[in-house]
Amino acid sequence: MNQPDEPTEQTSIEQPDAWDQLEQIVAAGDPDAAHTFLKELPPGEDARIMAQLSETEQHEFIALLDDENAARLMESLPELQAGQLLSTLSAEQAAHIFDEMNSDEQVDLLDQLTDAQSEAILEEMDPEEAENVRFLSKYSRLCAGGLMITELLSFQETETVDDVVSDLRKNAEKYAEYNVQYIYVINADLQLVGVLRLRDLLMAPPGRKLSKMMIANPHSFPDMTPLQDLLHFFDAHPLFGLPVVDENKVLVGVVRREDVEAASEELAGKTFLRFAGIMGGEELRSLPLKTRSARRLSWLSINILLNIVAASIIAMYEETLESVIALAVFLPIVSDMSGCSGNQAIAVSTRELVLGVIRPSDWLHVFRKEFGLGIVNGLALGILLGGVAYIWKGNPYLGLVIGGALALNTLMAVCLGALIPLLLKGFKLDPALASGPILTTLTDMCGFFLVLSFAQALLPWLI
Amino acid sequence: MNQPDEPTEQTSIEQPDAWDQLEQIVAAGDPDAAHTFLKELPPGEDARIMAQLSETEQHEFIALLDDENAARLMESLPELQAGQLLSTLSAEQAAHIFDEMNSDEQVDLLDQLTDAQSEAILEEMDPEEAENVRFLSKYSRLCAGGLMITELLSFQETETVDDVVSDLRKNAEKYAEYNVQYIYVINADLQLVGVLRLRDLLMAPPGRKLSKMMIANPHSFPDMTPLQDLLHFFDAHPLFGLPVVDENKVLVGVVRREDVEAASEELAGKTFLRFAGIMGGEELRSLPLKTRSARRLSWLSINILLNIVAASIIAMYEETLESVIALAVFLPIVSDMSGCSGNQAIAVSTRELVLGVIRPSDWLHVFRKEFGLGIVNGLALGILLGGVAYIWKGNPYLGLVIGGALALNTLMAVCLGALIPLLLKGFKLDPALASGPILTTLTDMCGFFLVLSFAQALLPWLI
Repeated sequence: MNQPDEPTEQTSIEQPDAWDQLEQIVAAGDPDAAHTFLKELPPGEDARIMAQLSETEQHEFIALLDDENAARLMESLPELQAGQLLSTLSAEQAAHIFDEMNSDEQVDLLDQLTDAQSEAILEEMDPEEAENVRFLSKYSRLCAGGLMITELLSFQETETVDDVVSDLRKNAEKYAEYNVQYIYVINADLQLVGVLRLRDLLMAPPGRKLSKMMIANPHSFPDMTPLQDLLHFFDAHPLFGLPVVDENKVLVGVVRREDVEAASEELAGKTFLRFAGIMGGEELRSLPLKTRSARRLSWLSINILLNIVAASIIAMYEETLESVIALAVFLPIVSDMSGCSGNQAIAVSTRELVLGVIRPSDWLHVFRKEFGLGIVNGLALGILLGGVAYIWKGNPYLGLVIGGALALNTLMAVCLGALIPLLLKGFKLDPALASGPILTTLTDMCGFFLVLSFAQALLPWLI
Repeated sequence: MNQPDEPTEQTSIEQPDAWDQLEQIVAAGDPDAAHTFLKELPPGEDARIMAQLSETEQHEFIALLDDENAARLMESLPELQAGQLLSTLSAEQAAHIFDEMNSDEQVDLLDQLTDAQSEAILEEMDPEEAENVRFLSKYSRLCAGGLMITELLSFQETETVDDVVSDLRKNAEKYAEYNVQYIYVINADLQLVGVLRLRDLLMAPPGRKLSKMMIANPHSFPDMTPLQDLLHFFDAHPLFGLPVVDENKVLVGVVRREDVEAASEELAGKTFLRFAGIMGGEELRSLPLKTRSARRLSWLSINILLNIVAASIIAMYEETLESVIALAVFLPIVSDMSGCSGNQAIAVSTRELVLGVIRPSDWLHVFRKEFGLGIVNGLALGILLGGVAYIWKGNPYLGLVIGGALALNTLMAVCLGALIPLLLKGFKLDPALASGPILTTLTDMCGFFLVLSFAQALLPWLI
C-alpha cells in the first residue's frame, strides 16, 4: 500500500522501440536497466510488451528482476499471460516470487498451471504459506472463499486500543503489504465478534477494551457466498472489504471489493468471448496455434452441423426454388436479418440477467415486452425488404412472400432470443454460450420454411 | 462507510411475492414497512422489483422513503433505471435526495436527465453543492475529473498530527460519509504536496508537522486522464484512490478504485450491447417501446441494406444457380460459417485491445497469428462441408466448389475479423459498433462470389 514513485504523467505514450529496448536489456543481462525499464513503462504497457516476447525472452527478462518486482509484474499481467510466464520458471524461482504475493493472487496463478507444476511450487514455498494456499484452493474461484485474502489483522476482544496500536507499530513492516482497512475482533473460539475502523482507534482513549468500542455482530459473508451476491452487495455498500467466516462463524479471511470486481470483470471478458463462440477458456494470441484453433473449432463444428440441418429445409423445396430462382437471393437475407434481431434480444436478456433486473421466473414479463417490439420491428423490416423484392422483379406477390416471411420470422426471433437466455439460466446453463447457435438454427429453419412455403402457396402468381 | 446492519444471510432468496408485498406497502402508504422491506430485500433484488413497478408505483414507493434511504436505493439501481425513477420526482424531492449522495453519484444521475430537469434540481440544491456539481459535470464521464469525488480530507503542510487528529475527532460526524483512506497535504496555493495514510498518523508523535512525515510528491492524476489509463493504473497498484490535480497542480478531488472499476464495467456492458447491434445507449426493457425499437432498428436498417448489397452478387449469377440449384442450399451455410469465424477473430482482437495486449500498430503481428489459424480452420471446415456436398449429390466437383469456397472464405474472414477492430480503433472509431456489420457484408459478398464463380468455372462437371 505504498504510494508508487512513478512519474505523474499518466497518458499512455506510444513507444515503438520499447520492445527493442527490452531485447537489448535482456541481451545485456542488466538487472538495474530491467527495473528502470519496468518503472518507466506506461501503465498496461507491460502486458503488451510481454505478449510479443518469445517464451525464452520472457524467461530471461523475469530472471533479471528481483522477486518483489517479478511478483508485481505478474500481478499486472492478464492471468493467462502470467500463467504462461510462470510455467517457464523453475519451481524454486516461482516459489520465491510467490512469497511476495497475496494469498489470493497465489491461488489464482496456480489455477493457471497443471497440478504437477503447482504441486512442485508449493513444495518449494514456505510451508505455512503453502498450507494456506492449499486451504484456499479448496474453494471455487467464484465464491467468497475463493476470492478472499487471509492477510488480515485480528485481535482478541479482551485487548485494548493500546495493545493494538503498539502491535501496529511493532509490525508496521509486515503489515505494510496488508490492505489494513479494518481490525477484526475475535473471541476465544476465533469467531468473529466485532470490527473496528482504523479511524475508531484514532479517536478512542488508549485504555479502552476493544469489546467496549467495536461494532458488534458486524456484517460478514459465509465462505460459500457466490460471486454474484458479493458483487450486488459491494454495488450497494461503499465498503472496501468484508470478513469471511466458515460454517462455525470462525473468521477465515477478508474479501475485498477490488477482488470481487476484478473477478466479475474477468467473468465478463470470458462471457464476451463465449458469446462470440470461443470455448474452453479465454484466447490470447500468445497461446499455441493448436489450442487457439481447437477452442474456435469446438463450436464452429457444432455450428456447421446446425447450419446443415437448417439448410436441409431449402433442399426440400428445390423445385419451388428452381421455378422462382429470385428466392435464392433473399434466403440469406431473411436468415441473417432474423439472426440479428434475435441476437439483440439475447444481448438485452443476458445484460438484464447480469444486472439482476430480471430472473428466469420473469419470462412472461419479458415475453410481453418483446412481443410488442417484435411486431413493430417485424413490420418495419418486412415492408422494407418486401418493397425491395417487389420493385426488383416488379411482382407484388414476391414482395408479399418475402416481406411476410421476414416480418413473421422477426417476431419469432425476438421472442425466442429474449426467452432462450432465461430458459438456459433457469436450467443453470451458461446463456452466453448456447443462446446464439440455438437461436440462429431455429430462425434459419423457420425463415427458410416461411419464405419457401409462402412461395409454394403463391407459386402461380410468382412465375 | 458504516458497517451495514443487515442480516448476515447473503444467498439471494427467491421471493415470488416480494412484488405483491411492495404493492401492498405502497397502497397502505406505510413508510416503516417500506424501509423494513428494502432492508430485508436480498442484494440486487431491488433493481428487479423496481423494474416491474409502473412509473406511478415507483414514484409512490420512493415518496415513502426518507431521503437517506431513497439515495441508497437510487445508487444501487442501474443508472438508467435510477434516472427514470428520478424523472418522476419533483425537483425539490430530487434535490433533497441528492444532498445524501456523493458528488460523483450526483453528476452521474444528472447525466441521465434532460438539461431542463437537471437544471431545475440544481436550483433546489444547497448552492455550494450545486456549484460543485456544475464544476464536476464539465468533465467527461470517462476521465479522472468525471470520476472523482470532491469529498476528501486535506490539511496545510504546516499543521501537526495533533491538529489533524483533533479535526478528525471534531468532524467525525461529517467525515463518516467520506471514504477516509488518505489525508492530503497542500501548500498555501492549494497545490498537492504530500499524502498521509491514517496508519501513519496512528504511529507518529502528536507534535510532528505534516510536512515532516508526509510522503512528498505523491502520485496524482491530471484531471483529464482517460479511464483506460486509470484502469491500467489501479490494475497495477493496490491503491484505493489517488488525488486528482488540475493543470496548476491544485488538488481538485480523489478518484477511487471502485468508481474507476464501476465505470469500466458499465462501459463493458454498453460494448456488449453495441456488439449485438443496439445503438444510442443501453437498453432495459423498462424503457418505452418507441426508444427500444428505434435503438434496435437504427442498425438493423443499415444491416438490411448491407445484406441486399451482398445478396446482389447472387442475383448476378442467377443462371448458374438455376442450372445447379443445390448451390442455393450451401450459400447461406458458407455465408453464416464465415461470419462466425470472422466474429471469433473480432472478439479476440476486441478483447486483446481492452486488455492492452495489442495496439493498432501491432497489426502485422496480429495478421501473422490469424493467417496461420485461418489456414488450419479453413481446411478443417472446407473439408467437412465439401465432404457433405460430395456425399449428398455424389458429385466430387460440387464438393470441391463448396469446400474450396468455404476454406478460402474462412481464411479471409479471420484475417479481416482480426484486423478490422485494430483499423477502427486506429481511426478512433468504436470497434465494437462497426466491426460486425462491415465483416459480415464483406464475407457474405466474397463467399457468394467464390461459390458461384467456382461453380461457373466447373459448370460442365456440375450438371
